[in-house]
Amino acid sequence: MNNTPAIILVHPQMGENIGAAARAMMNFGLRDLRLVAPRDGWPNQRAVDMSSGALDVMPPVQVYDTLAEALTGCTYVYATSARRRELNKPICTLKEAAISSLKHERSAFVFGPERTGLDNDDLALCHEMITVPTNPDFSSINLGQAVLLVTYEWFQNREEHGFQEPLERAPHEKLEEMFTRLEAELEAGHFFREEGLRPTMARNIRTMLMRAEFSAQEVSTFQGMISALIGNKTRKRT
Amino acid sequence: MNNTPAIILVHPQMGENIGAAARAMMNFGLRDLRLVAPRDGWPNQRAVDMSSGALDVMPPVQVYDTLAEALTGCTYVYATSARRRELNKPICTLKEAAISSLKHERSAFVFGPERTGLDNDDLALCHEMITVPTNPDFSSINLGQAVLLVTYEWFQNREEHGFQEPLERAPHEKLEEMFTRLEAELEAGHFFREEGLRPTMARNIRTMLMRAEFSAQEVSTFQGMISALIGNKTRKRT
Repeated sequence: MNNTPAIILVHPQMGENIGAAARAMMNFGLRDLRLVAPRDGWPNQRAVDMSSGALDVMPPVQVYDTLAEALTGCTYVYATSARRRELNKPICTLKEAAISSLKHERSAFVFGPERTGLDNDDLALCHEMITVPTNPDFSSINLGQAVLLVTYEWFQNREEHGFQEPLERAPHEKLEEMFTRLEAELEAGHFFREEGLRPTMARNIRTMLMRAEFSAQEVSTFQGMISALIGNKTRKRT
Repeated sequence: MNNTPAIILVHPQMGENIGAAARAMMNFGLRDLRLVAPRDGWPNQRAVDMSSGALDVMPPVQVYDTLAEALTGCTYVYATSARRRELNKPICTLKEAAISSLKHERSAFVFGPERTGLDNDDLALCHEMITVPTNPDFSSINLGQAVLLVTYEWFQNREEHGFQEPLERAPHEKLEEMFTRLEAELEAGHFFREEGLRPTMARNIRTMLMRAEFSAQEVSTFQGMISALIGNKTRKRT
């Protein structure tokens, strides 16, 4: 069964933007708001004031320490990012994301902090990057307004296209477990020649493998492949 | 030649919403912001603060006493209104409005005051009413956010479809002149049997004739028809 998407705000700074996001979500039928380490903690009175009652009627907002934890249960993750990064991620428009999200069991839309946007480590956890074409001379969109555009497009396209047969995709935590183990084993095998190269190489591996969109079964297969590959070295340990 | 649409805020109350509207306009390439009798006058420091510099770079905001005056030069007018009124106006979605606006020489999107929305007299000046499908349990959208959705849809569809060959439509002030004269002549002919019925009947006449979408030439023809019809009575006056 498909679920409505989660909206995840990473390190949001202004309570007003969290409140505006909640209001926009309720306007367009979304109810799962997750925060990663909000600057001013949680709950936040400015957020409540700005939400026009949305925070009172929606299920409690969930708060996490990291984006990886906040993605629990999500099977497909869209990042919103104004800047193009060097990561080799597929890029889509807001509308394309809204439509493709309808075929995922549990999608998430991730928004970075107001000033800086998502950093490369957080972007590496996402499958696709959304860009919104804007006036190049005045392109900065407020966080609350960015959430509004996502929720608006989602609702309009859900009305038009309906939910699709969901694709089989592993939930985020299964992938996370796989990548964590893979990185540890690669480390043990001296794959990351220099410590300084490790973050970039790890991100590139995630990006590359996430494009394969593994099902839960395929994650198990890949875990088995890792076990087989390290078998000789670790026979004593396993 | 097509122009980009004007955004017209009727009796806006909060400077913050005017500023957010200006920012959204600049984000999506619109520059013609008109205000009708803003509650706190103009200029407004809260609007400037909220506009993130948009009000500094866009052409000066124009301020008018009435919507009729603010519509000067506009050849097609969209009203945004959450509530369905008894007026017999065509209703369209935001996206349909964004697409159809591309074939008008000079379109306008009109937004009512925060709490009450547009009144029936102002709605009567518009050709079509836009509705945004929302969650019926939580449908109230903030004014600044409503402007954002309009500007966003306009920009995305301008990118996708481009401007169309413009339709020949009379500018608002020509229609206004025609209606004002028509109402005066109908009054003189005792058409509005009771004074209490006049506002509703006058709105219904506007609504009915606006659906014809007269060109400037057709307005002249209609003016000639009025002259011919009143000819016998007013020969002495004209």
